[in-house]
Amino acid sequence: MQNGLFITFEGPEGAGKTTIIKQIEQEVSKRMQVLCTREPGGIDIAEQIRSVILNPENTKMDGRTEALLYAAARRQHLVEKVIPAIEKGKLVLCDRFIDSSLAYQGYARGLGIEEVYSINRFATEDRMPDLTVYFDLSPEVGLSRIEDNEQREKNRLDLEKMEFHKKVQEGYKRVLSMFPDRMVVVNAEQPIEKVYQDVLAVIERKLGEII
Amino acid sequence: MQNGLFITFEGPEGAGKTTIIKQIEQEVSKRMQVLCTREPGGIDIAEQIRSVILNPENTKMDGRTEALLYAAARRQHLVEKVIPAIEKGKLVLCDRFIDSSLAYQGYARGLGIEEVYSINRFATEDRMPDLTVYFDLSPEVGLSRIEDNEQREKNRLDLEKMEFHKKVQEGYKRVLSMFPDRMVVVNAEQPIEKVYQDVLAVIERKLGEII
Repeated sequence: MQNGLFITFEGPEGAGKTTIIKQIEQEVSKRMQVLCTREPGGIDIAEQIRSVILNPENTKMDGRTEALLYAAARRQHLVEKVIPAIEKGKLVLCDRFIDSSLAYQGYARGLGIEEVYSINRFATEDRMPDLTVYFDLSPEVGLSRIEDNEQREKNRLDLEKMEFHKKVQEGYKRVLSMFPDRMVVVNAEQPIEKVYQDVLAVIERKLGEII
Repeated sequence: MQNGLFITFEGPEGAGKTTIIKQIEQEVSKRMQVLCTREPGGIDIAEQIRSVILNPENTKMDGRTEALLYAAARRQHLVEKVIPAIEKGKLVLCDRFIDSSLAYQGYARGLGIEEVYSINRFATEDRMPDLTVYFDLSPEVGLSRIEDNEQREKNRLDLEKMEFHKKVQEGYKRVLSMFPDRMVVVNAEQPIEKVYQDVLAVIERKLGEII
């Protein structure tokens, strides 16, 4: 039985991840089965957890509570959806995973990258992605793209200040230094077609390794 | 400013914890301010998390998801209710805390006591109780008391088999060996009045240390 592949996509808001992932899915699904997902991914229990996290009335939510809830939703999505797909030989494309928690909760919110990594290792049983594509763009460009896009619903994180987005970028830089073999950086300030070509090339190379 | 005291109560279902805690509260509140609580303790965010854990439709819930949710609810209850009360000099009596997770999820459900302890240390920032009273009774006696009590609503854990209750007891024994200084064992198979006297004596001794 051939095993599938688990690829995650990371980066700040406004980096174009969602658009590119769809294009990648369209291209690669001509050749192999692809599961395109993001947490909570339609998994009922994970959706329930997510709704607690994002409930705007929960203004008293402590940062550690939030990090534990993200880890819980991640766990359920991983075991119910991601791992079964990988075991069926599929290519799983996941919009955000463990590195988001490390950069956002661990670094930007100041809980500590190592501490947040530890609860996430419990959640994932050390099941890490085979490859992670990091969309690199400055906080200024990311934020201006979010504000230009009226169709996109603003969520709580979008409303945080520029300062926070800068911290997220710093957090990602630290995460990149922790996992140099797994993570590949793509310049997401390029025109979207060029970003797509770069991401596709990275994924093709990884697929070439396993086929 | 004098700090309060944080006392937790542990043991299997049917051990009589709830009854005794109320009696202790009545007695001790003659002399000092007492907060009597149990997770999720009326804390809105913790209640929302609890309702995800206990939703009977969530049959696919993974054991690690559950453990992370318990840790998240614990965190919120601790920072919103327990710590503020301690800082006001109150005696906090809490029905179940970290040791329940170690015995139930860590040992009885097989996730590993050390691993569950690690996510709970993240949740509590190592804020451990000053004293923990362990209600010791055999699984047979505990289960028969639950079944005799028709008024008490049966929950998911009550419906687990005897085998599980035996594992819980084994789990607690291991937890007791990890924290011999913090935990005190009371024989909960005695008549309830005697159990109460023993628990009160343990608490009076602890109060005597700090006053």
